[in-house]
Amino acid sequence: MNDDIIGKLTEIFVRFPGIGPKQARRFVYFLLSQTSGSLQNFAKLIAELKTDINQCELCTRFFILGNKRVPICDLCLDPNRDNSQLMIIEKDIDLNNIRKLGVYNGQYAVLGGLIPILEKNPENRIRQDALVRNIEKRQADHNLKEIIIALSVTREGDNTVEYLKSLLQPYEEKGVKISILGRGLSSGTEIEYTDSDTIKNALLNRH
Amino acid sequence: MNDDIIGKLTEIFVRFPGIGPKQARRFVYFLLSQTSGSLQNFAKLIAELKTDINQCELCTRFFILGNKRVPICDLCLDPNRDNSQLMIIEKDIDLNNIRKLGVYNGQYAVLGGLIPILEKNPENRIRQDALVRNIEKRQADHNLKEIIIALSVTREGDNTVEYLKSLLQPYEEKGVKISILGRGLSSGTEIEYTDSDTIKNALLNRH
Amino acid sequence: MNDDIIGKLTEIFVRFPGIGPKQARRFVYFLLSQTSGSLQNFAKLIAELKTDINQCELCTRFFILGNKRVPICDLCLDPNRDNSQLMIIEKDIDLNNIRKLGVYNGQYAVLGGLIPILEKNPENRIRQDALVRNIEKRQADHNLKEIIIALSVTREGDNTVEYLKSLLQPYEEKGVKISILGRGLSSGTEIEYTDSDTIKNALLNRH
Amino acid sequence: MNDDIIGKLTEIFVRFPGIGPKQARRFVYFLLSQTSGSLQNFAKLIAELKTDINQCELCTRFFILGNKRVPICDLCLDPNRDNSQLMIIEKDIDLNNIRKLGVYNGQYAVLGGLIPILEKNPENRIRQDALVRNIEKRQADHNLKEIIIALSVTREGDNTVEYLKSLLQPYEEKGVKISILGRGLSSGTEIEYTDSDTIKNALLNRH
Repeated sequence: MNDDIIGKLTEIFVRFPGIGPKQARRFVYFLLSQTSGSLQNFAKLIAELKTDINQCELCTRFFILGNKRVPICDLCLDPNRDNSQLMIIEKDIDLNNIRKLGVYNGQYAVLGGLIPILEKNPENRIRQDALVRNIEKRQADHNLKEIIIALSVTREGDNTVEYLKSLLQPYEEKGVKISILGRGLSSGTEIEYTDSDTIKNALLNRH
Repeated sequence: MNDDIIGKLTEIFVRFPGIGPKQARRFVYFLLSQTSGSLQNFAKLIAELKTDINQCELCTRFFILGNKRVPICDLCLDPNRDNSQLMIIEKDIDLNNIRKLGVYNGQYAVLGGLIPILEKNPENRIRQDALVRNIEKRQADHNLKEIIIALSVTREGDNTVEYLKSLLQPYEEKGVKISILGRGLSSGTEIEYTDSDTIKNALLNRH
Repeated sequence: MNDDIIGKLTEIFVRFPGIGPKQARRFVYFLLSQTSGSLQNFAKLIAELKTDINQCELCTRFFILGNKRVPICDLCLDPNRDNSQLMIIEKDIDLNNIRKLGVYNGQYAVLGGLIPILEKNPENRIRQDALVRNIEKRQADHNLKEIIIALSVTREGDNTVEYLKSLLQPYEEKGVKISILGRGLSSGTEIEYTDSDTIKNALLNRH
Repeated sequence: MNDDIIGKLTEIFVRFPGIGPKQARRFVYFLLSQTSGSLQNFAKLIAELKTDINQCELCTRFFILGNKRVPICDLCLDPNRDNSQLMIIEKDIDLNNIRKLGVYNGQYAVLGGLIPILEKNPENRIRQDALVRNIEKRQADHNLKEIIIALSVTREGDNTVEYLKSLLQPYEEKGVKISILGRGLSSGTEIEYTDSDTIKNALLNRH
């Protein structure tokens, strides 16, 4: 069944985030109901995606190449952003969310992944070389004062925080502050259902 | 925002069944994280989908063209199927589900849609010409005895049943039985929560 | 913890249908926040529940005893109901639902339960003696023509149907029709997701 | 319908937290299926609930009266707890949760409610007199150093925090620290979905 084109496309859609086999197959039948013209257009956009989108050499986020064809993204080049702060985030969508909230004006570094517990080669799970290059360059060019680790509060996130803290220790010794986002009660938290880590952190960070 | 390639692809994914703007955007970033090779392969499959898949001239379902390049699908050509029965279903996925259950061995006609209440041009909502052609051909070639309307029990489904019943009246007058699937308690139905239509039908069809 | 009154009441609420330990405990704290007067009133109603409510000697449903203090409920005594039909249902709430729908005007018999698969003493799981007494009486007094088994379409429901069919065979031999509710597509059923039993029954009962 | 005992009991159960009319009625039929003995026992526990449970004169939480029949609960009397800290929480269940987590060893004050936005008589929504009495007594008897406001992060919770801050200002002026639980990322928070308030607080409280 998976040898035919419906099976092959279903298999690709199954790998999309949050999609099961039934919905994947429904996607293929949805495509079949579209005009040939729409499908050619869709295929062209997918084929060109990586040509029009570049990965920034500095922060490693994806950005749209305009006519200028520069290797550095508009955020990294923006003279109005505060170059003394660098926020390490997991992925582009996290960056877009924080950017949209308008509460941070520093620079970013995208890890591209998190490190699972007991991973033997953590350096392969994140864009470590790019991160180090990013930090070194910002130290050289600007007065980098703080690196803020902003990862999800999950087991993988916490494990990655630990790894990054020891990776970044040399910079801390050179005077760069390494911080992590504060833990505590988030919007909507109800005391009745709060876990012990969150209450502990909320008590520690009470003010 | 929608002028760039990420916006354009997001807009296409939003039209996929069951996909909202957030998940659509996540799909695009998922694609960005794939290799160029995978994306070229994915694009090629989409571009070729309509070339490899044909719509059967008889039942209008989609089927995979093999080397033979015939305009009629393997189901319609299968000599082991009972040509005296024709089941009208809404869409390919319904057909696949019934086929998989192994409880029906007749032929099919795919409508490609349902008719909303108060629709002014019902003939444009379903593949009416193909349906009539299908019935005429089976009447001519074989001894068509029964047309079974097998649509979902929704307002649109019921409306389509009414429309089909009057459309098919000429065949009924020529001796073809027009039937609809029996109504009653389906698997899992609990009497406590059953609606009045279902109980009424279950009482009528008690045995 | 369960020795104290909060623990004891929590344990009682946990046995309520659909209630877990957390909600059970919340119920107790909700009661604690009520006035003493409300609690006395609530306790009185619970203590009197079985005094004010009688179980009908004929159909075994619960009914409110008025001033008349009769052992037979108003439904069983209603001269406008059709005494030639008797519907066997599982529980009072099922009876209330069917009654509300206004599609059946015969008499009822409440089983008070269903028989699990492989149950060794099925006669203890349902009100079998009362059912037989009910049927015998209606046969003697009236012209009982049909017994309609109206149970949920679940494994226990189907098992109980089988048991009742053999239990009621003597009456069938005397000319009483034993029927079960028709199976097929119920309101809202979508063909795409329909299981094989339901399609099989819907095909059998097509009309 | 609501004049009879089933209707009356249904109306009481509808007021239980999280219970709708259908489940309320199911509760009554569940009670009908219990033995008279169980119902008498249940009624007795409800009637005695307020006799066996006392509301602590100091913290206003509910506690089980033992043989001693004291007006002050075991927590308030516990010599091993830190009397220099007082935590204001909304309700008993919140207190039980925090107590179970084992991260706080001070004293408590239960508000018994939160203050809705634009409430004209906020002092009626919380146990204000008891709170003030509690604080005064702890100031007189012990060296009260800090009052920690630990409310859910909801609109009502935040509104109550504002009200309490101004209510407690006189104590702040006398040297008692008034603090609220730290805000930030709680367990399970994903950066992709974090709202702007939470990120803002997490950035402010970074460390």
